[in-house]
Amino acid sequence: MTSFVRNQWYVAAFGREVGRELFARTVCGEPILLWRTESGAVTAMSDRCVHRRFPLSQEPSRIVGDQVVCGYHGFTYGADGVCVSVPGQKRVPRTARLTSYPVVEQDSFVWVWIGERELADEKLVPRAPWLDHPGYTTVSGMEPLAARYDLLVDNLLDLSHETYLHGGYIGTPEVAETPITTEVDEAAGVVRVSRRMDDAACPPFYANSTGIEGRITRWQDIEYHAPCLYLLHSRVAPVGSRPPEPDGTDPDGFHMEVVYAITPETEHSTHDFWAVARDFAPDDQAVTDFVHDNNRTVVLQDVVALDVLEKAISAERDGYQELSINIDTGGLAARRILKRLAEEGARATAGSTSAGAEARGSA
Amino acid sequence: MTSFVRNQWYVAAFGREVGRELFARTVCGEPILLWRTESGAVTAMSDRCVHRRFPLSQEPSRIVGDQVVCGYHGFTYGADGVCVSVPGQKRVPRTARLTSYPVVEQDSFVWVWIGERELADEKLVPRAPWLDHPGYTTVSGMEPLAARYDLLVDNLLDLSHETYLHGGYIGTPEVAETPITTEVDEAAGVVRVSRRMDDAACPPFYANSTGIEGRITRWQDIEYHAPCLYLLHSRVAPVGSRPPEPDGTDPDGFHMEVVYAITPETEHSTHDFWAVARDFAPDDQAVTDFVHDNNRTVVLQDVVALDVLEKAISAERDGYQELSINIDTGGLAARRILKRLAEEGARATAGSTSAGAEARGSA
Amino acid sequence: MTSFVRNQWYVAAFGREVGRELFARTVCGEPILLWRTESGAVTAMSDRCVHRRFPLSQEPSRIVGDQVVCGYHGFTYGADGVCVSVPGQKRVPRTARLTSYPVVEQDSFVWVWIGERELADEKLVPRAPWLDHPGYTTVSGMEPLAARYDLLVDNLLDLSHETYLHGGYIGTPEVAETPITTEVDEAAGVVRVSRRMDDAACPPFYANSTGIEGRITRWQDIEYHAPCLYLLHSRVAPVGSRPPEPDGTDPDGFHMEVVYAITPETEHSTHDFWAVARDFAPDDQAVTDFVHDNNRTVVLQDVVALDVLEKAISAERDGYQELSINIDTGGLAARRILKRLAEEGARATAGSTSAGAEARGSA
Repeated sequence: MTSFVRNQWYVAAFGREVGRELFARTVCGEPILLWRTESGAVTAMSDRCVHRRFPLSQEPSRIVGDQVVCGYHGFTYGADGVCVSVPGQKRVPRTARLTSYPVVEQDSFVWVWIGERELADEKLVPRAPWLDHPGYTTVSGMEPLAARYDLLVDNLLDLSHETYLHGGYIGTPEVAETPITTEVDEAAGVVRVSRRMDDAACPPFYANSTGIEGRITRWQDIEYHAPCLYLLHSRVAPVGSRPPEPDGTDPDGFHMEVVYAITPETEHSTHDFWAVARDFAPDDQAVTDFVHDNNRTVVLQDVVALDVLEKAISAERDGYQELSINIDTGGLAARRILKRLAEEGARATAGSTSAGAEARGSA
Repeated sequence: MTSFVRNQWYVAAFGREVGRELFARTVCGEPILLWRTESGAVTAMSDRCVHRRFPLSQEPSRIVGDQVVCGYHGFTYGADGVCVSVPGQKRVPRTARLTSYPVVEQDSFVWVWIGERELADEKLVPRAPWLDHPGYTTVSGMEPLAARYDLLVDNLLDLSHETYLHGGYIGTPEVAETPITTEVDEAAGVVRVSRRMDDAACPPFYANSTGIEGRITRWQDIEYHAPCLYLLHSRVAPVGSRPPEPDGTDPDGFHMEVVYAITPETEHSTHDFWAVARDFAPDDQAVTDFVHDNNRTVVLQDVVALDVLEKAISAERDGYQELSINIDTGGLAARRILKRLAEEGARATAGSTSAGAEARGSA
Repeated sequence: MTSFVRNQWYVAAFGREVGRELFARTVCGEPILLWRTESGAVTAMSDRCVHRRFPLSQEPSRIVGDQVVCGYHGFTYGADGVCVSVPGQKRVPRTARLTSYPVVEQDSFVWVWIGERELADEKLVPRAPWLDHPGYTTVSGMEPLAARYDLLVDNLLDLSHETYLHGGYIGTPEVAETPITTEVDEAAGVVRVSRRMDDAACPPFYANSTGIEGRITRWQDIEYHAPCLYLLHSRVAPVGSRPPEPDGTDPDGFHMEVVYAITPETEHSTHDFWAVARDFAPDDQAVTDFVHDNNRTVVLQDVVALDVLEKAISAERDGYQELSINIDTGGLAARRILKRLAEEGARATAGSTSAGAEARGSA
């Protein structure tokens, strides 16, 4: 099992979850407070008051203008995390500041940087542009997963499980039967897994959303950007229809961009953000509702299975045995990349000044 | 506290619990999948798919003919635990096989062997023949116990507790007052504890089932076959009636064979299988119902007390103090035997090839 | 975090909680059985039978006259903890005795001595005489706190939190704004923190109980007798009224004696005993009800906050950072004293014969 991969961007929330109420989410074991300033900018800081570690997200803590007031003793912080007021004295200790987190709001997600602040590069936030693109209609949600995030990475990189775990929803026999091709860009930390089915049954998820009645050509092109972002470019079209044009246009294809943000909460729990953006029937609310409900059902099938698996694995002795086969090529590549990134992140953090190393003391 | 005693037969289930549905039970910390083949034979194998450790008892895993299909990725196993099919490829890895457990179905119980397969000897399964003998009428059940199995062994080997914990059911003052005789067969791992009451009050359990109205002669003859099987040969008869004949016939006695199978689930939980077989009023359903309900009530009194005791002991420092007296002679002998058997089992296992020692790897 | 402070008196219960029913409470990790003899005296002994550690407070254990009978095997103990009867034999083992605890019932509390028996000095039980004094009307209760006791000590020694956590009940801006004076008697283990507000808003708790309508003079004089007893001498009076006379009489002042007994249950839970004694409107039941309900609400606000804080701190790495300011002077002094007392208690215990060191054995 890999431990947390530091010095990376992670999705902390959908933008719609963060407003003028204090909102807490734990990312890679770090409790983070999220809120919007009066100008609408998202701000992220440690969810623990510097005084006695009271969670700032806990009532009666509150937002006053562009400041947060701790509900226990009234320590007050600006949007940059700097303490501006303490009870019973005029002088505010110089070291009274919360860790603040670099934030990028993009593609409907709120991304935060977990790691050394000076290494954060906003240009490196991975993209999922369909999610707020006018040419796509998107449904999305977040399901709490009581399992280590590695299990969700494994799950999503090997879609042969659709045939068994999601039979009757998105799985048909052809998914498990069709071999995959895997490409790994070790330097970029990207794993690509493709499965092209030329003549497959159309599962209910696609039949009901696209209206296709017969058999289909079905392409699954996965791009996993370790550690957090997973993209599944899904194309279905009736058997015999035209392939995409060389310029990328594809009048016969139905496209779904299935996006997961896989954000570790603790060592044994994960925020499972999911979204499906489609380029067809954009204004058909019945299709939108169907895609939302059916995809959420599929996500919850994974959640139930992975929660069970987490319990099973947690009860095993260390060094328990797995047996991997061809379908696992992508997942094993992902594990390898995550292991390397975790090691690099740990080294980078060990090399900088440790932010939490100050001793207790009065000021 | 003893740890698990390996290289022993344990009761995993009543035969009636196992059928054509996947059924899981953990024995000595090992998750076991139990099901019947089309021929009706009980088969037992590891409840963890070799691929990613998914529990095979978990939906949507299923039985198809004489095979089990994993509900996660479709790995398929025969009744011998050997994998016969995997997704996405024709070749099945040679090492893809589940641990399978030797099974004996006997005396209404499904026994499994926990330990080194080559040491399993079906002739050594201990017997409780009354439970499916036509001359006896039997009631039985299983109650989950949130306590280490040692506490149930202690409990059953010292029946003086009947007077206090089961007063008004099976206990009367004479049980606690009457001295016991204890015999220990160290080599066979059998402890015998006998208490003969010549003139005792008849508790409601016996009064209502036998119809005896006055005082009774009451014999309790315990045989504990470590680690799993406990037999209580119980004889009651009106005071003054004839003792058993030299040939074993006993026209004046009422006999109950009270059987417990004490199967550790985890270090701190136990499957408490119980059964009562009687040789009188065989077809009287009212007596059958009474014996079932009353005995289950008594078992649940033990469960409540031992669950409390487990919590109390778990919260103690190591090396907490007990004080033993004459009534504990049988229980102390049982502890001694269990300790020796645990050590022997651990040595035997260390001496064989460790089944779980293969490294992870793709095939 | 300090560990338990041994060789100290602790409040185990209100006197009204203990009667002729078996009553259990854990103090500093020690399970204690409390009951009254036929003469009405409170007796305290270990809540674990010497035989097999069964909790004596657990049904069907029971009081018979001035003896307690274990509900498991009938070991019977006198009020001094000495075993007087065991099942199956006449001889009672010499070592069969429960640890009994020195008890003092005083000021409505049942105090027990946790530590070496020979060091217990009844004259050193700290006093809160108002609680059963005819000149005062008292309300009281106990709230279970799922937090280490240190957090409650911190909380009570720094009342600036009233402004934030208890705003609208007992807090006004002046509490957090007004500097404190702190006196520490290291030898006696007493911390005194005073805050004198000459002209402050009158919070609802005092307005509704005293009937004062305008602004008030408000004095908060804390005396913390480590480790267990906390006294807050609270005086309010209309602004401009007379101060107390040199002889201590104070006709214009309204006095509340707010008492907390802070009794560790386990390392991470605490019995939060609270009481409020007032010297005004002694027979006004509406005032009594209001003070009870309003103070309980305030206590529960602390409980909610400290339970949250305990979870937050428990999830932190060791050596997490706090930042202390002037308001924390009293709390830091208390921590220092508790640390010293814990060390002294551990040394004293190490120096005496360890009561729990006897080996298992039959007798």
